[in-house]
Amino acid sequence: MGWGDLGCYGNEARETPNIDKLAAEGALFTDFYSTSPLCTPSRAAMLTGRLPIRNGVYTNNTFGVNAVFLPDSPGGLPAEEETIAEALAKLGYRNKVIGKWHVGNNKESFPLNQGFHEFFGSNHNRMGPYNNESYFPHPEVYRDDKMVGRYFEREFFMDLGTRESNITRMWTEDALDFIDKNNDKPFFLFWSADGTHKPEVASKDFLGTSERGVYGDVIRELDYGVGQIISKLKQHLLQNDTFVFFGSDNGPAYQRRVDEGGSSGPFLCSKTTTFEGGMRVPGIFWWPGVIPAGQIEKIPANLLDIFPTILEATGAKSSNPNVILDGQSLWSTLTDESTSALENNSIFYYRGNGLYAVRVGNYKAHYWSWNAAPDTKNILGDPCPGFYQEGFITTNITDHNDQPLLFHLGRDPGERYHIE
Amino acid sequence: MGWGDLGCYGNEARETPNIDKLAAEGALFTDFYSTSPLCTPSRAAMLTGRLPIRNGVYTNNTFGVNAVFLPDSPGGLPAEEETIAEALAKLGYRNKVIGKWHVGNNKESFPLNQGFHEFFGSNHNRMGPYNNESYFPHPEVYRDDKMVGRYFEREFFMDLGTRESNITRMWTEDALDFIDKNNDKPFFLFWSADGTHKPEVASKDFLGTSERGVYGDVIRELDYGVGQIISKLKQHLLQNDTFVFFGSDNGPAYQRRVDEGGSSGPFLCSKTTTFEGGMRVPGIFWWPGVIPAGQIEKIPANLLDIFPTILEATGAKSSNPNVILDGQSLWSTLTDESTSALENNSIFYYRGNGLYAVRVGNYKAHYWSWNAAPDTKNILGDPCPGFYQEGFITTNITDHNDQPLLFHLGRDPGERYHIE
Repeated sequence: MGWGDLGCYGNEARETPNIDKLAAEGALFTDFYSTSPLCTPSRAAMLTGRLPIRNGVYTNNTFGVNAVFLPDSPGGLPAEEETIAEALAKLGYRNKVIGKWHVGNNKESFPLNQGFHEFFGSNHNRMGPYNNESYFPHPEVYRDDKMVGRYFEREFFMDLGTRESNITRMWTEDALDFIDKNNDKPFFLFWSADGTHKPEVASKDFLGTSERGVYGDVIRELDYGVGQIISKLKQHLLQNDTFVFFGSDNGPAYQRRVDEGGSSGPFLCSKTTTFEGGMRVPGIFWWPGVIPAGQIEKIPANLLDIFPTILEATGAKSSNPNVILDGQSLWSTLTDESTSALENNSIFYYRGNGLYAVRVGNYKAHYWSWNAAPDTKNILGDPCPGFYQEGFITTNITDHNDQPLLFHLGRDPGERYHIE
Repeated sequence: MGWGDLGCYGNEARETPNIDKLAAEGALFTDFYSTSPLCTPSRAAMLTGRLPIRNGVYTNNTFGVNAVFLPDSPGGLPAEEETIAEALAKLGYRNKVIGKWHVGNNKESFPLNQGFHEFFGSNHNRMGPYNNESYFPHPEVYRDDKMVGRYFEREFFMDLGTRESNITRMWTEDALDFIDKNNDKPFFLFWSADGTHKPEVASKDFLGTSERGVYGDVIRELDYGVGQIISKLKQHLLQNDTFVFFGSDNGPAYQRRVDEGGSSGPFLCSKTTTFEGGMRVPGIFWWPGVIPAGQIEKIPANLLDIFPTILEATGAKSSNPNVILDGQSLWSTLTDESTSALENNSIFYYRGNGLYAVRVGNYKAHYWSWNAAPDTKNILGDPCPGFYQEGFITTNITDHNDQPLLFHLGRDPGERYHIE
C-alpha cells in the first residue's frame, strides 16, 4: 500500500473512513518509511527492529531488487533474532499473526518458532502458479503449525476471472475471534492483511464498489476490517488499553493493468525503488487517552522503530542488551507533542545489501538512482511509468557515490529537481 | 494554489491547520475544479457563474495560454455581466473585495462598478517590471476608487532580496476590520489573497518558517489569515450565520526555482495546462450548523457553481432569468449528505476559447493534450517538469478530436495510462 492510498494522506477516492478516523484520533506520521522497498526484508526489519543487513533477511541477487522469498529461496529469519512477539511472550502476552508472514522458508523462521502462539495465514505472498503447477504448487495456508489448504483452492479460492475471494474476510473474522478469546489478558495481534498484493481480489460485498477498480475494492475491504477490529476492542472496553499501529511494508505496486495500481501520492515511482514512492508509507498510531488525538508528526520515522517503541510502551526488555537495534523508540514523541529529539532521525534506503540513498533532515542523497534493472523491468512491470530523467530515473545502473544526487524533500518532496 | 498544497488534501508539510479545520468542520470536495488553468478567466467565471466563452473574459491569443490581463490588455468583465456582488447588493449586502481583482482594465470592470462597495487591492497580478520601468509601471494598489500606491513601492513593498512584504498581512488586517464594521448586517467578503502568485513574498514573522521555502511560508501566512478571519467571525458570534468557501483560481505554478513551486498532489502538471494538476484545486465549504461537519464530497464541482450556490443559499435572484448560468447550485449537496443529483456533473477544461478536455463521470477525454506551446514554455517555465509522454504531454500541438485520448480518473487520477 502507498502513502497516497488513504484518505488521511490525501487520496482523492476517500475509501478509508475507519483508518482516517484512527489518524484523526491518534498520530499521523507524514514522513514514515518502510525499511526496504520490498515486503520480505521490511517485515523482518519491523519484527526485529534491525536493518535487513543485520538480521540477515535480504538478498544480493538481481542488484538487490529481488529480495523477496520465493518457495525455493533458502534460509529465513534466523532463530537467534528476537522478534516483537518473543519479547512480549516473556511478559505473558498471547501472540498471533494473521495473514501474510513471508520471512523465510526454513522451519525456524515460521511464526510458532518466532514467538507467536498462533498463526492463520501463509508463509508466502499470494502469487501462485495459478494453473501452471509445473513451476511451484499454490502457496500453503497454515493454521498454527498445520497446513490447512492452499491459495486458489477450496475455501482459499482467488477467482482471477471474477476477482472474488473470501481471504480478507477470513483474516478479519479470525482477528475478531482472537480478540474475543483474549480480551481478559495482554495480547499482540499482527494483522498482516495482504489484500493489496497482487493478485488483488476482494469479497463479493466489496467487488465493484470503488471507482478505482479492484485495488480500491481491496482498500475498502481492508478499511472495513480495521473498523471491525476497532469496534471489537471497544466492545470489550479495550480501547484505552490497546496500542494500535497501522503501516505498510513498501510503497504501492504500479501494475501494468490500470485497475491494479496503488497510489504513492505526490511521490516518485513505486515499490522496488528507493525513490520516495517506493518507501514512504502510511504510519498511524492510536491509543486513546495515551497518544493525544490529532497529532501530525513530521519527524522521519521507520518500521524499524516499531520494536523499540513497543519495548518502551510495554516495559519489555530486549533479551540481549548487546544486540544493536537500528530503530529508535517513538514513545516520547507519540505521548508528548513537545518532543522533538528525533528531528534528525536518518533514513537509510536499502535494496538488498546496497545502500542506495540516505535521508538526513530534509536532505536526501541518492548514491544509486536507477529505477529497475533492464532484465527485471519487463518481469516486474515499470515502477515509474511516465517518469524518466536522464541519469536519475533510468534503467542505467549509475553510481553517484562521488557526487551523490541531492534533493531537499521539504521543498521538493516529489524528487523532481536535484540540487546542483 | 494547488490541490496538494493543503494538509487536508495530503500535503506532507502540513502547514495549514486552520484551513484543515474548516474542512473537518465542513465539506471537503475531492473533485473540485477551477474554470480555467489561469487566474483571470477563472475569477470572472466564479464571479458570474458563466464560462469564460460566455462572459467574454478569455483570450484566444498564444493558443489560449496567455489568457491573463496584462496592463495593456484591452477590455474586461462586461458591465452587463451580473456578479455575485451585484446579486447580493440587491438584498442589502455590504460587499468588499480585498487583494487581487484582475478581471479587466477598463473602468466598467473595476470592483466598484461590478457590485462591490469597497476595494482594497490591485487590479493586476503582483508581477511588475520591478526596476525596469521602461515596460510597465508597477501595478497600482487601490482603496475603493482611489489609487493609493504601487506594488514594490513604500508600504506595498516586495523585497525580492529578503522576500519580505507586508501585503498579505494588510489583506488580513483589512478583512478583520471589514468584519468588525459590518458584524450587524449581511456582508460578502471576497478575500482574494494572492500570496501564492509570484513573486512569492511573506511577512517577517513567516519568512523561513516552512520546510518548503518561501512558497510554504506564504501558505502558512494565508492559513494564519484564514484562522484570524474565522476567529473574528466567532468573536461576533457569526459562525452559524456565515457561509465560507475556500478555493483557488488555478493549479499551482511550478517555477524553475525549486523553492517557489506549489503542489498538485498526485495530479499531472500545473497551472496553464488542462491536465488535472492545472485545474483540480481545493474546494472547502464551511457553515457550522447548516453544512454537516466531516463531509467528503466526490461529485465533480467547479468554481462556476459558487454563484448559483450563493443564489440558493441567500434566496437572491439573478436579475435576468434568461441569462444562462453554466454552474449548478451545490446547496442541496452541501446541506444534505444523501443528495447525489450532481453525480454526473460535467467539467469542461478550456484554454481561452479552445475546449481541450471534458470530464463526464470518471471519464476524461482529451481533445488537445499538449502542455505548452514551444514559444511560451521558455517564458512561463515548464508546467510539467519530468513528465513527458509522446503524443500526450508534449509541446507538439496535436489534435485528438477524431479519437480523443480517454482516461479514467477514478482508477488513474494521475492521467498516466490512456484507455486504448
